[in-house]
Amino acid sequence: MKFQSLKGFRDFYPEEMAARRKVLDKIFCTVRPYGFREVDSPSLEMLELFRVKSGEEILTQTFNFTDKGNRDVTLIPELTPTVARMVVERSRSLKRPIKWFSMPKMWRYEEPQSGRLREFYQLNVDIFGVPGPEADAEVLAVGIDIMLKLGLEGEFIFKISDRRLMQGVLESMGIADKREAVFAAIDKRYKITHSEFKELLSKAGLDDIQIGRLLSILDSRGPILEALQKLRALLSLENEQTRSGFESLEKLADLLVMYRMEQYCELDPSVIRGLAYYTGTVFECYDTKGELRAIFGGGRYDKIIELFGGDSIPAVGFGMGDAVLEILMRRAGVWPEEKISTDYFILTTSPQYMETALFLAQALREKQLVVETDLLGRNFGNQMKYANSIGTKTLLILGEKEMAGGQVSIKDMTTGAQKTEEVIRFLDSVKNK
Amino acid sequence: MKFQSLKGFRDFYPEEMAARRKVLDKIFCTVRPYGFREVDSPSLEMLELFRVKSGEEILTQTFNFTDKGNRDVTLIPELTPTVARMVVERSRSLKRPIKWFSMPKMWRYEEPQSGRLREFYQLNVDIFGVPGPEADAEVLAVGIDIMLKLGLEGEFIFKISDRRLMQGVLESMGIADKREAVFAAIDKRYKITHSEFKELLSKAGLDDIQIGRLLSILDSRGPILEALQKLRALLSLENEQTRSGFESLEKLADLLVMYRMEQYCELDPSVIRGLAYYTGTVFECYDTKGELRAIFGGGRYDKIIELFGGDSIPAVGFGMGDAVLEILMRRAGVWPEEKISTDYFILTTSPQYMETALFLAQALREKQLVVETDLLGRNFGNQMKYANSIGTKTLLILGEKEMAGGQVSIKDMTTGAQKTEEVIRFLDSVKNK
Repeated sequence: MKFQSLKGFRDFYPEEMAARRKVLDKIFCTVRPYGFREVDSPSLEMLELFRVKSGEEILTQTFNFTDKGNRDVTLIPELTPTVARMVVERSRSLKRPIKWFSMPKMWRYEEPQSGRLREFYQLNVDIFGVPGPEADAEVLAVGIDIMLKLGLEGEFIFKISDRRLMQGVLESMGIADKREAVFAAIDKRYKITHSEFKELLSKAGLDDIQIGRLLSILDSRGPILEALQKLRALLSLENEQTRSGFESLEKLADLLVMYRMEQYCELDPSVIRGLAYYTGTVFECYDTKGELRAIFGGGRYDKIIELFGGDSIPAVGFGMGDAVLEILMRRAGVWPEEKISTDYFILTTSPQYMETALFLAQALREKQLVVETDLLGRNFGNQMKYANSIGTKTLLILGEKEMAGGQVSIKDMTTGAQKTEEVIRFLDSVKNK
Repeated sequence: MKFQSLKGFRDFYPEEMAARRKVLDKIFCTVRPYGFREVDSPSLEMLELFRVKSGEEILTQTFNFTDKGNRDVTLIPELTPTVARMVVERSRSLKRPIKWFSMPKMWRYEEPQSGRLREFYQLNVDIFGVPGPEADAEVLAVGIDIMLKLGLEGEFIFKISDRRLMQGVLESMGIADKREAVFAAIDKRYKITHSEFKELLSKAGLDDIQIGRLLSILDSRGPILEALQKLRALLSLENEQTRSGFESLEKLADLLVMYRMEQYCELDPSVIRGLAYYTGTVFECYDTKGELRAIFGGGRYDKIIELFGGDSIPAVGFGMGDAVLEILMRRAGVWPEEKISTDYFILTTSPQYMETALFLAQALREKQLVVETDLLGRNFGNQMKYANSIGTKTLLILGEKEMAGGQVSIKDMTTGAQKTEEVIRFLDSVKNK
């Protein structure tokens, strides 16, 4: 008889978890200084909450079921509906801007593959109540800062656009009615060949001239400041949508320069982010080698709060899953070493010395140091072996000789250097961690 | 249209979460120094994993369902089966003792009431591979230390017993065959009247002499050292079970004295912890007023790894849910204040000053300080209002006068004191958090 975890679900043993904890701490310590406030929310919600935003399609991709109270419920596949529900609930009392983050578990019933799991963690960062690009820039700055703090400089690029840009382009070209098919084609662009892409546009009802014009705009991608210059010449800025999108991107670029983060950003008009609820800025973060799925995705979704029954409150934010991030960090060699460490192991040569060992252990633990004592009455050699297996930095030895003089031997496990000191004097010399 | 969260599930807004985060940090910072290593594991498992331990009864109390792959799965109602599965999986390579902790979410389909929710967090602390009371003592020490670190001295008491003690007592009295009914009665003891309790024992088949004898033993409760003395006179230590249980408790009490934690521990032979899988030490932590449910529950369960298909590995541990703990902390007045705070708000009197504001903000954020800037182009008064609403400690003002001289005004929001300094000089003077 042997039990297994479910496919697409992960166990994290101490060494693996120690590395993950370092990454999670780094992420939290990057997001918090921007004034984003942590929130927490249920893992299970009424299925209806997700139907509102994503339609019936969501049913095929979630762990949904009918609970014992006959409610249609689902494990959350994303956080936005929950966050929107929470904003609506207290929209009268919440001070604007509302700046929230959290990194809960989420679940999707999809075929597990590289970078896609059935259970994963996703960082969500959102600002509600700011209509201008100041919020878009801040959200992007946090995303970029996370990647930099994780040691990924040079490994990632943020691709940015504005939904209104391409919407306006289609309007100017008189093909606004073909938006759904054209956007679907653009969304697939980098997953298919160039001729397949052109065929999709042709099928959508575009003629060769229209396709050529669309391609020239889509290809105006590159470093955000230069690409905006290039794009300006190609666009009909008389179109209201195009102009709003373009001007918003210009302001966003200015702000990114002030954050000194423009070098991590490309303009890419191909970024559409599906037919979802985005209304303005859209962005995705990719590895520079272009081998992996998107690491981040986000943008502005000003209609979301209304969709969930609240007042009109503008919103911008992103989600970042842990799975692709981990693959990129491992590939870049910056995933933390998977090992545990221990500040002190207290080695006792007789059970009689346990009282002193526990006194020492508790005093050191009060200083936030990680301390283990022998729980198995093992001999010297086996205690040493165990101390090594838990990455002990300093060994404290309580043997007959030490105990006779109220002393302790202190062995540095890296250098092997050893000295003997009075227990009390030693304790006094140890600083809080 | 308005959406609600599910009954028994909680939303945590920033102020509430700030308080919870402090409590969680305190718990983690207490457990880690003992050398317990964090693990993480799935929220969803095969239902079979829980059936093994708890039988069909578990089906009525969990969020279980059949997934799209036709698997009978459940949201985890407790962590022990998962941890056991993980130990079995790597039992050959894991170094002993295995000391693990985690504090995941769990779900139970029960009627929500005070201290009982459908979704909750539970801290789990376990030691595998140690047969002796050294592990029981360490696990208890961690539990007690958590309560002390949370400021609950005087508010809680650990009630300890050993399952073998009462098993042996029943054997000596020749009523071992009535164990199930007698243990069930003892388990209910403090929830029913004294006469109801005696009636239950009578129904279980005990005569008045047997009931009297049982009561005298059950009543030998009190401070652990004294109560053990009192109990010794009442027990037949010729009985193997009774003797093992009693001697183990004596050793445990000695170790608790070495940890200087005996004053938080009572012996209470009524502690049985159901008919579950415990094999030795059992303990529960209650509020001293006796008004609440158990805050902690745990003990030794040496058969668990075998039950899940592994080798025989002794085990001891506990679970501590967050719901009753929060009630107790609030009652004791030690639940952290529910408020957010901000190190700096940078007030700008013109959008032109945004570049300097963002330069300042990013420099301070690098020092791990929480900084917000104006995202809404608000006037002086409204920026002040917002700064106050987010608990700003220090206001940095960039106005016309300041900007002309490369300066910033620094206003202490508590004292109201204000001074003006060069931006660079100010930045140099700010220390890392």
